Amino acid sequence: MKAFTDYLYFTTNERKCLINITEELDQCVQKAMVKEGMCLVSAMHITAGIWVNDEESGLKKDLMAWLEDLAPIREDYLHRRTGEDNADAHLKRTLVHHQAVLPITEGKLDLGPWEQVFYAEFDGQRKKRVVVKILGL
Amino acid sequence: MKAFTDYLYFTTNERKCLINITEELDQCVQKAMVKEGMCLVSAMHITAGIWVNDEESGLKKDLMAWLEDLAPIREDYLHRRTGEDNADAHLKRTLVHHQAVLPITEGKLDLGPWEQVFYAEFDGQRKKRVVVKILGL
Amino acid sequence: MKAFTDYLYFTTNERKCLINITEELDQCVQKAMVKEGMCLVSAMHITAGIWVNDEESGLKKDLMAWLEDLAPIREDYLHRRTGEDNADAHLKRTLVHHQAVLPITEGKLDLGPWEQVFYAEFDGQRKKRVVVKILGL
Repeated sequence: MKAFTDYLYFTTNERKCLINITEELDQCVQKAMVKEGMCLVSAMHITAGIWVNDEESGLKKDLMAWLEDLAPIREDYLHRRTGEDNADAHLKRTLVHHQAVLPITEGKLDLGPWEQVFYAEFDGQRKKRVVVKILGL
Repeated sequence: MKAFTDYLYFTTNERKCLINITEELDQCVQKAMVKEGMCLVSAMHITAGIWVNDEESGLKKDLMAWLEDLAPIREDYLHRRTGEDNADAHLKRTLVHHQAVLPITEGKLDLGPWEQVFYAEFDGQRKKRVVVKILGL
Repeated sequence: MKAFTDYLYFTTNERKCLINITEELDQCVQKAMVKEGMCLVSAMHITAGIWVNDEESGLKKDLMAWLEDLAPIREDYLHRRTGEDNADAHLKRTLVHHQAVLPITEGKLDLGPWEQVFYAEFDGQRKKRVVVKILGL
C-alpha cells in the first residue's frame, strides 16, 4: 500500500470564486504512483469548500448566487461579536461541503464525463490551503 | 490490501427519484472480499447524488419537496443559456452531496440500524452511472 | 496496511447540540497506530451529522439558527404519519452531511489551524452512535 500527501495553496484576487483544480489533482495521482485507490481533497480553512460539478461559466455563477441566497451576508450573525465578518462563508462551506473523495482507477482519477473538481473560496484574498491525501495500491 | 471497482447503472422512468442501492452495495462488498475497509459510492453524473437516510416513503417525499423548495426549477438560471434546463438538478446534487463513504467491518457494510443508501436522481430518464470503489484488508 | 474501528456514544441532554469530538478522534488515531491514512467519522443515526468547522460559540449558534431556518420543524411533513416528529432532523443531517473523512499525516489528524470536528445532534436525548474507521500504514 502507498500513501501520498500534498498541499495546494491559493491566494485569490476575489473574495469569492471557484478554481478548477482537476489538473493539479491529476498530477498528484501521477506523483503518488497509485493505480487503484482513493484521493481525499479537503479544504483546510473553514471558509472554503470543494465542489465536484460542471465547468460551465453560467452554472458556476448560478451556484454562487444560490449560495448567497441560502447563506447570505448578514449583519446580525453572532460570529460578528468576535470581530469576524465571514459567518456567511462558514455556512457556504457547509452547504457545498468541505471535501470530496475521488476514486482512482488504472492510475487515473475516475471521474464522470463532466465531473470537474473545484476549490470553492468564500473568504479569500489571503493564503489558504487544501490537503490532498491519496491511499491505494 | 485489496482494491475493488464496480459501476452501477440507472435509467429511471421519472425525472426525479430515490433508488435504494444498499443491497447492491452489500453485494459489491461480498465480491470485493474485503473484511475491514471503506466503500466509496459516488454519482458520476453531475445532476445526481447519494443520500444515506431512512427507507420511509413519507420522508422520501419530504426530502424531494424540500429540495424543490431550496433549489427550485427556475427559468432564469444562467445555465439555461447553454440550452440546458437542469440547473436545479446540479444544485440539488450539491445539497444532498454526490457521494458517501461507507465503513466495512467484519466483511459487511457497517451501517446504523436505519441507514439505507439511496441513489438520488434529479435529471433522469437517461442512462447514468455510479462508481463503487472499495479499499481494505 | 492497518484497519481500526471504534464507536463513540452520545446521549445528549438537549434535543439539538454540537459536541466537539476532535480530542476523541485524536485518541482513536493514537490507538490505531496509523502514520499515514484516512479516518472516516460517520453518524450512524439518521438524525445526526458531522460538522468540521470552528470552535466559536457565536458561530455554533449561527449554524443551528440557520439550519432551523432552512429545515424548520413543521407539522405538515409526511414523515409525521409514521408518528415521528423528527423529519426536520433528517433534513438537517442532510444539510451538514452525515460524515467526514479526515487525513492522517505523521501519526496525527491533519486538520487546518481552526478545523475542529463536531458531532451534530438534531434529535437527541437518547443513546446514539458514531462509527470511526481508520485505514492506513
